[in-house]
Amino acid sequence: MTISLIYLYLHYKNIIMKTTFGPQKIMFPCPATLVVTGTMEDANIVTIAWVSLLTSLPPSLGISVGQRGFSGEAIKKNRNFTVNIATVDIMKEADFCGITSGKDLDKFKESGLTKMPSKHIESPIIKECPLNLECKLVDWQIVGRTNHFIGEILETHIDTDKLKDVNKYGSIDIEVFNPLIYIGGVREYRKVGEKVGDPYSIGNQLKK
Amino acid sequence: MTISLIYLYLHYKNIIMKTTFGPQKIMFPCPATLVVTGTMEDANIVTIAWVSLLTSLPPSLGISVGQRGFSGEAIKKNRNFTVNIATVDIMKEADFCGITSGKDLDKFKESGLTKMPSKHIESPIIKECPLNLECKLVDWQIVGRTNHFIGEILETHIDTDKLKDVNKYGSIDIEVFNPLIYIGGVREYRKVGEKVGDPYSIGNQLKK
Repeated sequence: MTISLIYLYLHYKNIIMKTTFGPQKIMFPCPATLVVTGTMEDANIVTIAWVSLLTSLPPSLGISVGQRGFSGEAIKKNRNFTVNIATVDIMKEADFCGITSGKDLDKFKESGLTKMPSKHIESPIIKECPLNLECKLVDWQIVGRTNHFIGEILETHIDTDKLKDVNKYGSIDIEVFNPLIYIGGVREYRKVGEKVGDPYSIGNQLKK
Repeated sequence: MTISLIYLYLHYKNIIMKTTFGPQKIMFPCPATLVVTGTMEDANIVTIAWVSLLTSLPPSLGISVGQRGFSGEAIKKNRNFTVNIATVDIMKEADFCGITSGKDLDKFKESGLTKMPSKHIESPIIKECPLNLECKLVDWQIVGRTNHFIGEILETHIDTDKLKDVNKYGSIDIEVFNPLIYIGGVREYRKVGEKVGDPYSIGNQLKK
């Protein structure tokens, strides 16, 4: 109550030039990823922007997958999946995999995307995605009406021609890679723009 | 074993032009967010790129926060936090909040960022961030060596001058907003580039 009154006071005094919209699902910029489930013989793809690394030891990520879809059941059954980062070059294919269901069609066949065997798990990776992460399901929970799957990253594949130094995974040339951005809430696909600074370094300028 | 042999065969035949790097924490493009904990009197900021929406009903997100830092304990104690999206304009401030500890200094004071009261919770929002989400802690778990906090979004604040239509939260002008991108793994800050397509629409071109 007290907090609300202070907020309203500042708002009416025009000190805050912000507008409130209640609880909204809005977050950006997000990676547009293609999550593959199943096997080389029977694989499915779903487009997921709700993905995030969770911990570095062991490297693990989380993906949020609708409870009604095909992919959630496949992950629970096979206990593995791959996360493949989409690029601007395959924007149409990535969007197609997000607006269709594996119940109705073979998304690999219809999109023209190419499956390749993973190294450690059954779920394939996507050739056209320059970065592929093989994940083993280690835990999952239901959050609201959505499954949150936690995957331990077992293997990282990167297109050799996207690397400035073929021995360093961190040397990816982002201009050549051309990752696709999903602007959640605003609903736009965008390109990545110019580099503006070095993390863990540029903030030192504010140290006294 | 069989999967590995197929993989090696294709690799040596040069059919796969990918290099493997083992388990790596690499994901991009990610939002650079500033998570605020505490109260108006005693607030702290931590920079988090490991953030993702988790479900739409009710709108909720997850953030991964190191177990050793100051912020995790504050979230467990106060059971609320805000997620504030950083822009290119405050890149130095955002980076500063990621390479310093609330144990050593007052990050609001030292960075020059401005705290403003939230509407429903104690943790403040950051004035310089054009999008602010008030979150109530609903669950948390330890993943590897990191805390994963699940927050229900109670309120969404957006700078009025970043909206094309002040009545629509989805009408944010991304060029004016100028969100900061964190390229995880490659360690770069970048701008968002041009719009390239409409989600939930452009994929229809591949439907038969």
